[in-house]
Amino acid sequence: MEQFAHYQPGAYAQEHIRITPTTLSDGRDFFYLDDEPQFVSGEKTRELKDPRPLAYRFAPQLDAEGNEVPYAAPQMRRDPLTGDWIPMATARMNRPITAGPGATAKGNPLAARKPGDPYQDGEVPDTDYNVVVFENRFPSMVRVPGADESVSYINDNPLWEKKLAVGRCEVICFDSNETGLPADLPVSRLRTVVEAWAFRTAEISQMEGIEQIFPFENHGQEIGVSLAHPHGQIYCYPFIAPKMEQELQHTEAYFERTGGNLLKDIMQGELEAQERIVMRNHSWVAYVPAAARWPLEVHVAPVRDVLTLDELNDQERWDLAQMYSTLLKRGNAFFDTGDGKGMDLPYIAAWHQAPIHDKRREHYRLNLQFFSFRRAANKIKYLAGSESGMAAWISDTTPELIASRFHELGEIDIA
Amino acid sequence: MEQFAHYQPGAYAQEHIRITPTTLSDGRDFFYLDDEPQFVSGEKTRELKDPRPLAYRFAPQLDAEGNEVPYAAPQMRRDPLTGDWIPMATARMNRPITAGPGATAKGNPLAARKPGDPYQDGEVPDTDYNVVVFENRFPSMVRVPGADESVSYINDNPLWEKKLAVGRCEVICFDSNETGLPADLPVSRLRTVVEAWAFRTAEISQMEGIEQIFPFENHGQEIGVSLAHPHGQIYCYPFIAPKMEQELQHTEAYFERTGGNLLKDIMQGELEAQERIVMRNHSWVAYVPAAARWPLEVHVAPVRDVLTLDELNDQERWDLAQMYSTLLKRGNAFFDTGDGKGMDLPYIAAWHQAPIHDKRREHYRLNLQFFSFRRAANKIKYLAGSESGMAAWISDTTPELIASRFHELGEIDIA
Repeated sequence: MEQFAHYQPGAYAQEHIRITPTTLSDGRDFFYLDDEPQFVSGEKTRELKDPRPLAYRFAPQLDAEGNEVPYAAPQMRRDPLTGDWIPMATARMNRPITAGPGATAKGNPLAARKPGDPYQDGEVPDTDYNVVVFENRFPSMVRVPGADESVSYINDNPLWEKKLAVGRCEVICFDSNETGLPADLPVSRLRTVVEAWAFRTAEISQMEGIEQIFPFENHGQEIGVSLAHPHGQIYCYPFIAPKMEQELQHTEAYFERTGGNLLKDIMQGELEAQERIVMRNHSWVAYVPAAARWPLEVHVAPVRDVLTLDELNDQERWDLAQMYSTLLKRGNAFFDTGDGKGMDLPYIAAWHQAPIHDKRREHYRLNLQFFSFRRAANKIKYLAGSESGMAAWISDTTPELIASRFHELGEIDIA
Repeated sequence: MEQFAHYQPGAYAQEHIRITPTTLSDGRDFFYLDDEPQFVSGEKTRELKDPRPLAYRFAPQLDAEGNEVPYAAPQMRRDPLTGDWIPMATARMNRPITAGPGATAKGNPLAARKPGDPYQDGEVPDTDYNVVVFENRFPSMVRVPGADESVSYINDNPLWEKKLAVGRCEVICFDSNETGLPADLPVSRLRTVVEAWAFRTAEISQMEGIEQIFPFENHGQEIGVSLAHPHGQIYCYPFIAPKMEQELQHTEAYFERTGGNLLKDIMQGELEAQERIVMRNHSWVAYVPAAARWPLEVHVAPVRDVLTLDELNDQERWDLAQMYSTLLKRGNAFFDTGDGKGMDLPYIAAWHQAPIHDKRREHYRLNLQFFSFRRAANKIKYLAGSESGMAAWISDTTPELIASRFHELGEIDIA
């Protein structure tokens, strides 16, 4: 593991997970995380060559008139009215359709390569895998070598700052079975996904320009997910995201006022109140927050003080895999479908980690915010005027009702 | 107009719009705003009696066991991690289905009453109308007379404040034609809608407990609008909404740093830059903001320094109606549907006004933020992990591309 200098694998990972780095034909980083014995033992080695003849990812491109133009590095602009940086995926828009084979994906690009298949659009060089992580082919944020990263002004007006969006976007495939649900994966495979989160957090934390690492999972066609393949993403922002900034302001103010850690005291308060706790194991506590805004919302906090995913120890990584698995299963059973079979719940699982460089990081604490837009088996919560226009959420339920439904679905103590 | 002490009608409104207040049978406020000559002249008077035998809106209700319980006033809770107040529509949830006739709406409750029709669920007492405004029957925020409005703690933990959501929710019907689109209304009718916004802003500003008045329009089934009838809403928050708070922090910091008004300087900067200006008339400027976050986004600012809708003068109200009409028409033509017919664009129109009591109000400025979730004739922008989980918007386009599309659709000078 020498090549991953900052990564502290869990004890299980040291013995049972093998990480194999490679590079895709266009230059993107790619990692296999294998947990099956034949890979871990070295009995079977990875086929590393990407068979696609992709051009170098940052090579000059052809514009509409066929002229060669430099790669259009993604930009971002700062909204003066809110202070938010808005990445603009101009590179994706300007991408010429004449860029050569494989310019647009056909089929499922997250599937393993089929042996002998001429299909050239799969992102995985090998014919099977357990968990893989790789850089997104069409990133909305990416560092382009040699590009000018200074701040400049739109229309020469200092109100409007712009600069390159020197972030990073990665994709994590949770399994090679393209029709499986994350909820149905064995805990041991989810344990490897946790290892991927920890590994990537450790590595990316060392990269220049990244301020916040945000592993998340969008699940369900209802929220626009076009690939059913079980996967998540990691957005690495070159700024503190607005929601994280708001949370940091409050955790810091709380520390200054009380000397305490707000996220820890919230967890402690939930444990004392009991009624909104939905799951517990040795290392984690899951609760419906007392001011939940979504029709289904659960926050998951580590028992121990932990800032980021890579700080989790081996037991905590195992316990997290177990809790994530149980959360997804109970989430699928949450809404009454009439036939008792449950549903494939659409959800967003959002990891809130301490930011990388911000000084307020010490008073933050790792937490997972899991929520669903679904508010009944046949109803969706839409983000209309109040939510989208004023960021003012109106809940249609109460945290205690959400928690009591979870209590019907299984034991709180899942250890 | 003596009964509306704080309302300054535009000159046109004094001559051509007649406001007639009444009360619905359950006690809610209701206002007709008529602009047709026979009503304005007094030749025809309003039928004011609501024929429904509704119980007093705040009367005790029956619980699941048939016991009488006090009306469940809507509550809100403060999220300690963000500081946001989250209203929880518990009153709507607890509302017994045994509450009597009219407990659930059948048909279109915004339609005018049909003469001789036994239908009892329409909200409008008369058989025709121009524009009406009334209190929402199932409000997520409302002041209940006699209810205890003090702050208390959930589970006796001071981390979790709760209190009654003593706000107000109103509905504005733009026209009695239930199948018409706001884009197709005559400018004179939209002028009456503007008068309704101004009138309600003036009146509600005087009500105890309200901090921010937010007139908005949700349009389109894509964002969950269940009633096609052309209508908007006014949410009156008993707090400063999170997005407004963020904007006030920035407008105030800008004033402290420069002595200027940020929103005015943004408008001025857009006028100088020119390229993102999409419409102008005598009183208003419409531009795609330099850091737009939606696939279609236009902000509309008054030329004159104005804080709130009720401060608009007669000319500004007329010019706003004209610009709103043009904006909606061009919005419907914005995406290429292939047949040149345009579409019924889903959109959110969100009025940002200076808050009522907050001291920073003087350095704010009225503006309309108009945006759509649609990003192509057949594509929707979903708010997934980055937007919903981290409030970090990623744009799929650029403001200049949005503006240049508007430039194809008509003249900038619409006066």
